[in-house]
Amino acid sequence: MYGLIGRFRAVAGKRDELIAVMLEGSVPMAGCKSYVIARDPGSADGVWITEVWDSPESHKASLAIPQVKATIAKAMPLIAGFEEHIETEPVGGIGIQ
Amino acid sequence: MYGLIGRFRAVAGKRDELIAVMLEGSVPMAGCKSYVIARDPGSADGVWITEVWDSPESHKASLAIPQVKATIAKAMPLIAGFEEHIETEPVGGIGIQ
Repeated sequence: MYGLIGRFRAVAGKRDELIAVMLEGSVPMAGCKSYVIARDPGSADGVWITEVWDSPESHKASLAIPQVKATIAKAMPLIAGFEEHIETEPVGGIGIQ
Repeated sequence: MYGLIGRFRAVAGKRDELIAVMLEGSVPMAGCKSYVIARDPGSADGVWITEVWDSPESHKASLAIPQVKATIAKAMPLIAGFEEHIETEPVGGIGIQ
């Protein structure tokens, strides 16, 4: 499996709006086994995303899904910066679809 | 919801054994909505854990479940160090049970 742990920073005051856009955009995606959106409770603007995919290819292909592209287009103006981008190799556990 | 992103380091050469112990110990736990165990592909010994719980209290209570305590006892000698312990506030997504 292929995993991502990412942290990014919303434009000041826009975190709730950004998260709402991301939740709306959480459509079923081929090969997506987990996709968790979380606030960073230690900051006003931080957002964590943790993802599990069956392969890097499925993750890459998801970026071409029309609804995902539309979500990215709506989200980008609400994002001030990308701060962490960690790749992992998930091996199992609970909640992997 | 309450989330954790943790990174720890296995004793040299013991990562596979540590992960096997953790996978065996992935029993259903009250309030546990996601629990993903992953290798760090950039190191020989790194392990990432990403967790979603309904509350911090459920996470804390899980540590008293006999099978979880047994897993921790088996895992501890295989862990060389804890390197990240990040608390999050998950708000939704995919694969949250």
